[in-house]
Amino acid sequence: MAAFRSRVGGLAYGGDYNPEQWDPAVWCEDVRLMREAGVNVVSLGVFAWASLEPEPGTYEFGWLDEVMDLLHGNGIAVNLATPTAAPPVWLTQLHPEVFPIMADGEPFGFGSRLHYDPSSPIYRRYAAAITTKLAERYSYHPALAMWHISNEYGPTAYNPASSVAFREWLRRRYGSLDALNEAWTTRFWGQVYTSWEQIEVPNIPRSWSNPARRLDFKRFTSDALLECFVAERDIVRSFRDDIPVMTNFMRFYRHADYWRWAPEEDAVALDIYPDPADPTSHISAAFQYDLFRSLKGGQPWMLMEQAASAVSQWKLNVVKEPGRMRLGSLQALSRGADSVMFFQWRASRGGQERFHSAMLPHSGPSSRTFREVTDLGRELRLLSGVAGTSMRADVAMLFDWNGWWGLEETYGLPRNDFSYADTVMRHYTPLWREHVPVDVVSTGGDLSPYKVLIVPNAYLIDDVGVATIHAFALAGGTVIMSFFSGVVDSCNRVRPDGYPGAFRELVGARIDEYWPARPSETFIVEFTDGRTTTASWWREDLHLETGKPLAVYHDGLLAGRAAVVENGFGSGRVIYFATLLEESAFGGVLVDTVRMAGVRSPFTEVPSHVECTIRGDKYLFLLNHSANSTTVPLPFSGTDLQTGTQVTKEITLVPLGSAVIERA
Amino acid sequence: MAAFRSRVGGLAYGGDYNPEQWDPAVWCEDVRLMREAGVNVVSLGVFAWASLEPEPGTYEFGWLDEVMDLLHGNGIAVNLATPTAAPPVWLTQLHPEVFPIMADGEPFGFGSRLHYDPSSPIYRRYAAAITTKLAERYSYHPALAMWHISNEYGPTAYNPASSVAFREWLRRRYGSLDALNEAWTTRFWGQVYTSWEQIEVPNIPRSWSNPARRLDFKRFTSDALLECFVAERDIVRSFRDDIPVMTNFMRFYRHADYWRWAPEEDAVALDIYPDPADPTSHISAAFQYDLFRSLKGGQPWMLMEQAASAVSQWKLNVVKEPGRMRLGSLQALSRGADSVMFFQWRASRGGQERFHSAMLPHSGPSSRTFREVTDLGRELRLLSGVAGTSMRADVAMLFDWNGWWGLEETYGLPRNDFSYADTVMRHYTPLWREHVPVDVVSTGGDLSPYKVLIVPNAYLIDDVGVATIHAFALAGGTVIMSFFSGVVDSCNRVRPDGYPGAFRELVGARIDEYWPARPSETFIVEFTDGRTTTASWWREDLHLETGKPLAVYHDGLLAGRAAVVENGFGSGRVIYFATLLEESAFGGVLVDTVRMAGVRSPFTEVPSHVECTIRGDKYLFLLNHSANSTTVPLPFSGTDLQTGTQVTKEITLVPLGSAVIERA
Amino acid sequence: MAAFRSRVGGLAYGGDYNPEQWDPAVWCEDVRLMREAGVNVVSLGVFAWASLEPEPGTYEFGWLDEVMDLLHGNGIAVNLATPTAAPPVWLTQLHPEVFPIMADGEPFGFGSRLHYDPSSPIYRRYAAAITTKLAERYSYHPALAMWHISNEYGPTAYNPASSVAFREWLRRRYGSLDALNEAWTTRFWGQVYTSWEQIEVPNIPRSWSNPARRLDFKRFTSDALLECFVAERDIVRSFRDDIPVMTNFMRFYRHADYWRWAPEEDAVALDIYPDPADPTSHISAAFQYDLFRSLKGGQPWMLMEQAASAVSQWKLNVVKEPGRMRLGSLQALSRGADSVMFFQWRASRGGQERFHSAMLPHSGPSSRTFREVTDLGRELRLLSGVAGTSMRADVAMLFDWNGWWGLEETYGLPRNDFSYADTVMRHYTPLWREHVPVDVVSTGGDLSPYKVLIVPNAYLIDDVGVATIHAFALAGGTVIMSFFSGVVDSCNRVRPDGYPGAFRELVGARIDEYWPARPSETFIVEFTDGRTTTASWWREDLHLETGKPLAVYHDGLLAGRAAVVENGFGSGRVIYFATLLEESAFGGVLVDTVRMAGVRSPFTEVPSHVECTIRGDKYLFLLNHSANSTTVPLPFSGTDLQTGTQVTKEITLVPLGSAVIERA
Repeated sequence: MAAFRSRVGGLAYGGDYNPEQWDPAVWCEDVRLMREAGVNVVSLGVFAWASLEPEPGTYEFGWLDEVMDLLHGNGIAVNLATPTAAPPVWLTQLHPEVFPIMADGEPFGFGSRLHYDPSSPIYRRYAAAITTKLAERYSYHPALAMWHISNEYGPTAYNPASSVAFREWLRRRYGSLDALNEAWTTRFWGQVYTSWEQIEVPNIPRSWSNPARRLDFKRFTSDALLECFVAERDIVRSFRDDIPVMTNFMRFYRHADYWRWAPEEDAVALDIYPDPADPTSHISAAFQYDLFRSLKGGQPWMLMEQAASAVSQWKLNVVKEPGRMRLGSLQALSRGADSVMFFQWRASRGGQERFHSAMLPHSGPSSRTFREVTDLGRELRLLSGVAGTSMRADVAMLFDWNGWWGLEETYGLPRNDFSYADTVMRHYTPLWREHVPVDVVSTGGDLSPYKVLIVPNAYLIDDVGVATIHAFALAGGTVIMSFFSGVVDSCNRVRPDGYPGAFRELVGARIDEYWPARPSETFIVEFTDGRTTTASWWREDLHLETGKPLAVYHDGLLAGRAAVVENGFGSGRVIYFATLLEESAFGGVLVDTVRMAGVRSPFTEVPSHVECTIRGDKYLFLLNHSANSTTVPLPFSGTDLQTGTQVTKEITLVPLGSAVIERA
Repeated sequence: MAAFRSRVGGLAYGGDYNPEQWDPAVWCEDVRLMREAGVNVVSLGVFAWASLEPEPGTYEFGWLDEVMDLLHGNGIAVNLATPTAAPPVWLTQLHPEVFPIMADGEPFGFGSRLHYDPSSPIYRRYAAAITTKLAERYSYHPALAMWHISNEYGPTAYNPASSVAFREWLRRRYGSLDALNEAWTTRFWGQVYTSWEQIEVPNIPRSWSNPARRLDFKRFTSDALLECFVAERDIVRSFRDDIPVMTNFMRFYRHADYWRWAPEEDAVALDIYPDPADPTSHISAAFQYDLFRSLKGGQPWMLMEQAASAVSQWKLNVVKEPGRMRLGSLQALSRGADSVMFFQWRASRGGQERFHSAMLPHSGPSSRTFREVTDLGRELRLLSGVAGTSMRADVAMLFDWNGWWGLEETYGLPRNDFSYADTVMRHYTPLWREHVPVDVVSTGGDLSPYKVLIVPNAYLIDDVGVATIHAFALAGGTVIMSFFSGVVDSCNRVRPDGYPGAFRELVGARIDEYWPARPSETFIVEFTDGRTTTASWWREDLHLETGKPLAVYHDGLLAGRAAVVENGFGSGRVIYFATLLEESAFGGVLVDTVRMAGVRSPFTEVPSHVECTIRGDKYLFLLNHSANSTTVPLPFSGTDLQTGTQVTKEITLVPLGSAVIERA
Repeated sequence: MAAFRSRVGGLAYGGDYNPEQWDPAVWCEDVRLMREAGVNVVSLGVFAWASLEPEPGTYEFGWLDEVMDLLHGNGIAVNLATPTAAPPVWLTQLHPEVFPIMADGEPFGFGSRLHYDPSSPIYRRYAAAITTKLAERYSYHPALAMWHISNEYGPTAYNPASSVAFREWLRRRYGSLDALNEAWTTRFWGQVYTSWEQIEVPNIPRSWSNPARRLDFKRFTSDALLECFVAERDIVRSFRDDIPVMTNFMRFYRHADYWRWAPEEDAVALDIYPDPADPTSHISAAFQYDLFRSLKGGQPWMLMEQAASAVSQWKLNVVKEPGRMRLGSLQALSRGADSVMFFQWRASRGGQERFHSAMLPHSGPSSRTFREVTDLGRELRLLSGVAGTSMRADVAMLFDWNGWWGLEETYGLPRNDFSYADTVMRHYTPLWREHVPVDVVSTGGDLSPYKVLIVPNAYLIDDVGVATIHAFALAGGTVIMSFFSGVVDSCNRVRPDGYPGAFRELVGARIDEYWPARPSETFIVEFTDGRTTTASWWREDLHLETGKPLAVYHDGLLAGRAAVVENGFGSGRVIYFATLLEESAFGGVLVDTVRMAGVRSPFTEVPSHVECTIRGDKYLFLLNHSANSTTVPLPFSGTDLQTGTQVTKEITLVPLGSAVIERA
């Protein structure tokens, strides 16, 4: 990646480029305007399979040669895509069994994208062939700077071929049918399997079905997609191994366990479309950026796709008002990105995304959007020093796809409207508001750099995760955990000896029963210092053992019972929320706990709406998300890189304005 | 059943027991704790087919022998299940055509339960085989006390085999195609059938389809399931005919006509899960209990499944707070049950219902739930005299599956949002609040014991029902009937000569047209004594003939027209509601009418929230459904069976408290 | 049609007659009551295929002979239907491939109607055969007055046969695959077709699919149905060509482009069921009537089906209160209808529509409905002079099925909740309230008769339409256009060179970007005269070129930018709404613009709720849609045809009352 960085001169700037949609005459204008906009890299050929291999085994590389040469001649590097996200129509005509069967039993059909069963050997064979051809031809093309494997891996398929692959996956996981039957608790409702061939992917039944089977199917689907990625990656690496290889991930994407994917890539890349109509979308974006920085242990990541203005996939697609695109781009940089890229360079005239905004929109180079794109390109060159720098945090947040699936993909919980994204954001937001940096960790992650670990609703957690958390607390770490955690093992089986199975000692309490609240039911909760707040949604009939109450219910059938627990564990401290506290009270406890753990922020005087981060101990980003001018104090003096001026005590940010200050 | 009662020493207490989910080591603890809890009967093997016949024709009865012996050795009787609700995976692997095809044309698949087409000859053959094996082996086992045939019969299937069976069923019902075409009004939209093979089950079309065909399909489906039951019942009876045989029914279950099922069983049994989050769920439970008592003519029935605390099948599953499980259990007894049983004995670690509460929950013997279970077991022994006693009522309520299907399963009514359960509960609730006992009757039931018959929205009613109601009124009975009754015959054809076809003379009025009301439209209704109330949802352009107005519309286009009609018919009296009166006004008229018919209650001084019933003219049940202590007067002195003390004038009930008083 | 008019003595009155549902004994009563009601024409045999051809190739015409003779003998003319909307069950049993496959991949099945794939050669062969037989036998029957081809053409099918026909249709449209790939922008997402056989109808994918393909499929489906109509029409014409031929259309029916259908018919006919529960349903009915009058260039049209009172196809089916059926019937006449007909004559006892009201309802000849039917029959004889007269209007409204599909049938717009019907009614209603007559035009229509053209949200408009509008404005016409118009061409491709592609010169402005508003976001808009109003839902970042602002945004990020534009174009004037103004302000601008264009109304003193129209420059219709008596001034004196009295200055209309005044 260092080579890539140096090649693009620091930060990558550009977008998806689909020249096959346009006359060659347009290509020259494209490249001219790219240069004007400061573009230094484009993602090329993402959906070009039909243009590259118009008939089986017949290739047309001429146009791509020409485009690669043209780009290279203009100093624009290429992130070359394998086009395998959109198999050509002839492939599905020859082999309709490649179409993914959907959960309703019908095939997906042709006319969109991602119309393949990732377990299909036929799909994989054709995908390998086109990948090989591309690698053969372009591995040493001077424009080539990175490989973009396929696109937004995603389909879940319920094909016969998926069942075959699922069985193989299960055989590898469990070894024996006895182990599988035990893991899936198949004695319940008499579902015992006596031969591997009896196991199908769980598209049906449509009624309440085995939760362990569904869970394994989620894992399998993620792994099947990952196998597709690895196969293509290995092909391109077999031709040349010094070109970085990645694929583009999505925001809060439930269907692929990115912790398993990230080690297979040279960099992680994110496509993100924060909704301008959602006034908190920049906070969840911040979390994604922290996650993506963490996926490869702090290494810079790539913002691979964002919109220059509105998207078109939602019912309502609001534009990014003037300034918002720039602010969002800097936000990604401020949390570890080394690129700002867009879908796409030039707005398409037709097709599904004809109203998805572009760097060069329908209204052309005189448009507001192109002006903002050009301004940003210029600005990024001033920030090139940021590239390659990393960040540090004292607080870690657990984010676990298995836990997510446990909460949302199987049924039969005390309440079945958990949202993992919501609970994560509920824990993240108070820290974001206080400018406290957060890293994200998996259940098997290294917690030694951190003072605090946050564990949001970890209903399903594997034994490794349990051990890691215990070890962290024993060694003096502070654990903040919320309700309904530690309940089941990685097979979705309730841990023995009562709730909260894995964490009884850690929390210092046993739970007799989970008491989800009725809709609109609220409870008064009283802290030990006499302050009161309200709670709702969830309670636990919790009986303290070594734990102490931080707050108790003031009313209701659980009056006097602990609502928030504090426990000492080893040298560590554990705070456990047994109910859903009202937001600001919850945030207060959380932030106090983090401070008590010794986490300090240099931004205590800065209002919440100005996001503050420091990259590489050197680059201070200040981002004003509000519609008001705001003056903020500075933790150090330095150079305002956008203006070149020196700043010392404070700086004033216009609405949606920002500053990047290099420490003196 | 008397033998069964005497065997369990009065009231049966226990639950579903699924030892195949646990190590044999756990069985001993189970039996020890069952004894501690007072359990005297368990339902065994409900989903054990896969454990009993792991391969086709290979049986493993060893574990069941052991469990039966263990239970018997500890004085616990067995309600042995045929395991046919959950065919093993090998059966569906060998014969995928056994899977029920759902209404959307796709098969149900494996991984849940009830995955069989009841019309499948293959399913029936395998079900008969395992039933035969069980009966051969256990008919004379000393633990055997009852047969539990299959479980919660339910699937609706649209298979080719269903169509074959449907045709046979239709041939038996109609004899000729001409009769069928006439019954189904097939000249409408040109649907005339000219050969039996043209008739398919009506999964498709998905658009508006023939209402008589849909109605017959509901009847057929209920009968097809009943044939499955009868076939298994006959097998076990062929081995030994002195063991009671039953299956477990469900609450407000629309898809099986229990009036046709009940005569085929030795006892009816109910699975019921009143939602603790619904503040009226105990009232609809009361109605179910009255229905189940009535299904076999007043004979005691079995509470076969309830939850010890929360269930897990809903989106939100609230716990039963302390005392509620006991109160609900006594409520079942108070309305004729001779058992209190649970799903299930020990909470499962995995599987779909891992969070369904159990007598022995995840938190074990020290849990609140197990404590309450044990207390209840002790208390039930004090109430054993109640077993076998019956009840009496002066008021009957018509409850008719055909009428239900007419209102809800076919389309094209003046309004298509009728809820039969809602209208039934609207009529039942005022009487429940006044402690008036109610029996439930079918259209062909014997009405001679009753003073009052209530007929809620009997849109579709067969000629037998019509004749029965007329005869009852002629002989002096009081009929309370609500709007949109008597409209169509049993083939869903509008009865000739104007509305309300069957009941014009009975009501003493003709109806020109049904006038459903607009949303939020209300009308003022004035009673003959000058009081006014409001009405909504429905009106009828009703023209009195022999009837007199009890109330008229005060405004709107029907001003002056009768809203409530009183008519003399023979020696009887008929009250007809032509609109939906506001709830309390409706209840007032209904209760007054019942009183005027000479129905007396000994509980006129008792507040509504204390439910009062008398079993066997001897056992007074008082159940306080409120959160407040309440003192109530007693109709007679006697012994408080829970405490052994004598009570005379009055008694005080704690919140959710109860008393059972044996008359002195 | 003139012969038909003279045959029925002016206005046609009657309904669907389905004697095959009844005993012949009933037929005599039917005819007697028809005469009593003034019926002069009935639609016969609409769903009678199964009764006419009970087995393949076996015909039973005896009953139809008898009915035709009986009707003729009683002076009732016959509108004889080809029964092809409901193929008999034997046809689908022999050829299940005739069933339309629905969008979910499952066949429609038997038991409703319209259960055929219009592209099926088998269906077409059988339909031709029965049509030929009917034409052979009845073309010269003296009762025959009109042919009613099939019924409410509608099904959309996704069969293999549909794909074959779709390919043929595409081949005719595009000639080459290159042209198709270009038109469909298939380079986007790599969907390039390389052989015709690769193209399937777009039932799948269920995800976001190619918008141009979907659009062409809508066109194809409309054309496939039209081919069915033309084939049957040609058969009956081949026997005798002086009998008018039509089929019955539906209200706001999106799936058939009636502009393409109307030229193929001798008259257009409408089935319409305005919902009595919707207080504006008479306004949208008025628009439909104007559309139907316009479909054949002002020629009288037929009201072919309406309800005498309630329908039964909705969730809630409210009755027409006394007077409403008559008022609605006169409304149709007042806007160009020459008939008042009903579905159906006699209410069915069974079948799907047993509760659909009828001229002769379940409550028989003594019913309110039959009384009103009889009264109306009498009244219509007094209005016979109206028949054959036409109307004129100065204002034209564009109504374009292609535009409709563009807005609603493809996805990916800046917002995806456009309703074409709503936007059309938003533009139509202010003119209706001011009694301004409106004609409806297609994109290729002749605009020379008009002073004003209204263009509601013409997102997709073909080049002919663009040229027509430009020519109209150049020549001095006034164009009122609303936002998001002219954006894409007829292939759903964004027109080049920025928004609003087709209309930049016409509007005198370019649009940088479309700015859909957030939910509940509103803006203050200030007119040049200082008045203010609010806007919502949509804005445009609009930059004036030759246009002048009529109103600008007062607040928000677009403050100062034009919200309503006025532009001179040639000798014409253009008013462009770039936002959704609050309803009354919008109506005000619209009505002012129409007046400024020289459109005068003789009814400026008449309140909105009294609908006023003049037919044939001679017959004044006054329709009081309110529940209050209203006195209105008259534009001329004449004879009140309903009462025979002379009226001069003014007339008083009772609630729901009406007057038809023949100019002196």
